[in-house]
Amino acid sequence: MKLEHIGIAISDIESAKQLIFALFSVHPYKVEVVESEGIRTHFYDAGGVKLELLESMSSTSAVARFLENHGQGLHHLAFSVDDASLDFERFKALGLRVLGDGPKNGADNKSIFFVHPKDTVGVLMEFCSNR
Amino acid sequence: MKLEHIGIAISDIESAKQLIFALFSVHPYKVEVVESEGIRTHFYDAGGVKLELLESMSSTSAVARFLENHGQGLHHLAFSVDDASLDFERFKALGLRVLGDGPKNGADNKSIFFVHPKDTVGVLMEFCSNR
Repeated sequence: MKLEHIGIAISDIESAKQLIFALFSVHPYKVEVVESEGIRTHFYDAGGVKLELLESMSSTSAVARFLENHGQGLHHLAFSVDDASLDFERFKALGLRVLGDGPKNGADNKSIFFVHPKDTVGVLMEFCSNR
Repeated sequence: MKLEHIGIAISDIESAKQLIFALFSVHPYKVEVVESEGIRTHFYDAGGVKLELLESMSSTSAVARFLENHGQGLHHLAFSVDDASLDFERFKALGLRVLGDGPKNGADNKSIFFVHPKDTVGVLMEFCSNR
């Protein structure tokens, strides 16, 4: 099991960055727009694992819906796998509700897919491999 | 910034362990009762960071209240700091709502404290140092 990153849904990115700086004295090392998800991701290095602040760029993005329902907070955990396509099929065969028709392009040059949190102890889980 | 562990609140520990085994083919490497929190923690190595399944041992624990309100899901992020006592005072001086009167004994021989999630982008954050 290898945690790749933690995604946190953020509505007020400036306040969030100020808070992280107050706590840890660090700034994001990268910012990336992920068109497929309708988000902008602010990356922090949290010691071998990434912490990603997820800012919605579209009122219909999954992050926008999460913010409407829950407000700011932990959005998902992402785990590195060798081949997202293989695990997509494996998890589907296990009866887990994988989202979408197959892996899609995520941030940081990854191929990613998600599993419905109702099947994964209430935690939205992403599985990603390098493209 | 150094992520130490992720805590996930679990109501059905056997199903949760079966799920993790189906996804990653791993078992917990340790189980520990944390009396001060009224929980039992099941530790997984997620590649330099720990994933902890938190099982409530008391109807009045913070994890029991979380499960009542939210069901299973992501409960908190824990970050390593050099000295939890110093950061407790520093964060208090910043106006953050630190919980309790000072650090207390946590799992894995740590001195720990929490900050109210309303002050930390909706994420319950733990800060911990070795005792």
